[in-house]
Amino acid sequence: MKLLEERILKDGQVFPGNVLKVDSFLNHQVDVDFLNEIGKEFYRLFGDCGVNKIFTIESSGIGIACIAAQYFHVPVVFAKKNKSKNIAADVYTTKIHSFTHGKVYDVIVSKDFLSKDDRILIIDDFLAQGCALKGLINIIKDAGADIVGAGIVIEKAFQKGGDEIRAEGIRVESLARVKSMSDDGDIEFCD
Amino acid sequence: MKLLEERILKDGQVFPGNVLKVDSFLNHQVDVDFLNEIGKEFYRLFGDCGVNKIFTIESSGIGIACIAAQYFHVPVVFAKKNKSKNIAADVYTTKIHSFTHGKVYDVIVSKDFLSKDDRILIIDDFLAQGCALKGLINIIKDAGADIVGAGIVIEKAFQKGGDEIRAEGIRVESLARVKSMSDDGDIEFCD
Repeated sequence: MKLLEERILKDGQVFPGNVLKVDSFLNHQVDVDFLNEIGKEFYRLFGDCGVNKIFTIESSGIGIACIAAQYFHVPVVFAKKNKSKNIAADVYTTKIHSFTHGKVYDVIVSKDFLSKDDRILIIDDFLAQGCALKGLINIIKDAGADIVGAGIVIEKAFQKGGDEIRAEGIRVESLARVKSMSDDGDIEFCD
Repeated sequence: MKLLEERILKDGQVFPGNVLKVDSFLNHQVDVDFLNEIGKEFYRLFGDCGVNKIFTIESSGIGIACIAAQYFHVPVVFAKKNKSKNIAADVYTTKIHSFTHGKVYDVIVSKDFLSKDDRILIIDDFLAQGCALKGLINIIKDAGADIVGAGIVIEKAFQKGGDEIRAEGIRVESLARVKSMSDDGDIEFCD
């Protein structure tokens, strides 16, 4: 998505360790008019797939998912990072390793909000190692629902998550695919 | 807001300890078309106040804030619960006591995204003791920005947060004000 690549080049910041900060428009401050362009693009890609629910994970996926969901006219469900020591009985649960925060989260979703009749589009802001996306896929499989695919805003294509998930036969559409980043701030996208 | 009160009566669940669960449409599963009605109402209330930024806190405020921001055509900034042991130098920070999770969070906002020139509308899903809202107000004051007011979806008016914050001269508009809840599930709203 040309508009997104241009925005990343203009406002993204590269930090050592392959960190790409886009918090001026995507995941701390949020440019909502711009998110609408992203939402429209997800609808262009997945609008004819019978999606009846959009699934994401707190926190930074929520705004993107809600804006995109307006085009699909379907509800959003967001997985929560479990804050209590116990896992309740009426939830789907999985563990997600966050490289960003250096910890493992228990992630939960109420069984009330995912079922075997659902056709689910996953939406998230980033895909790198794929830990969050794999966790969400596990939860959907537990619920017995269909996975239509995953719509990702930015994929670090030089990391392995996207390829691994595509190799499982799951459709992954990333609006910007970063091929490489250098510590002096250069960003190159895949063709 | 009549539509919201009806939805709370239809889909809300009361649990002992004055817990009102609205996670089927507001803060776990999200009815995005319904959120648009909420966003329009916030715009009706605050649309002529020169708001240039909407401010909320992760996680459940984000979707509501993003949908509402579309009517204002302004960006959203969401405060983050700090996950590292250290507070970086370039952030505003405050402590927020969460009664729901029984812990105190350090909450942070990058100094890049709030400034003394901003006129800020706070949006959040719930107001009860007011801890989160007071924390967000502290951050805005630290930034030297103007507080236009706070738009809250559901206020537990039988708890003290809303009155305390109004007593400080801050405009608080709650779309549904719960007067009382009983353990057998009855909910009464303020007139």
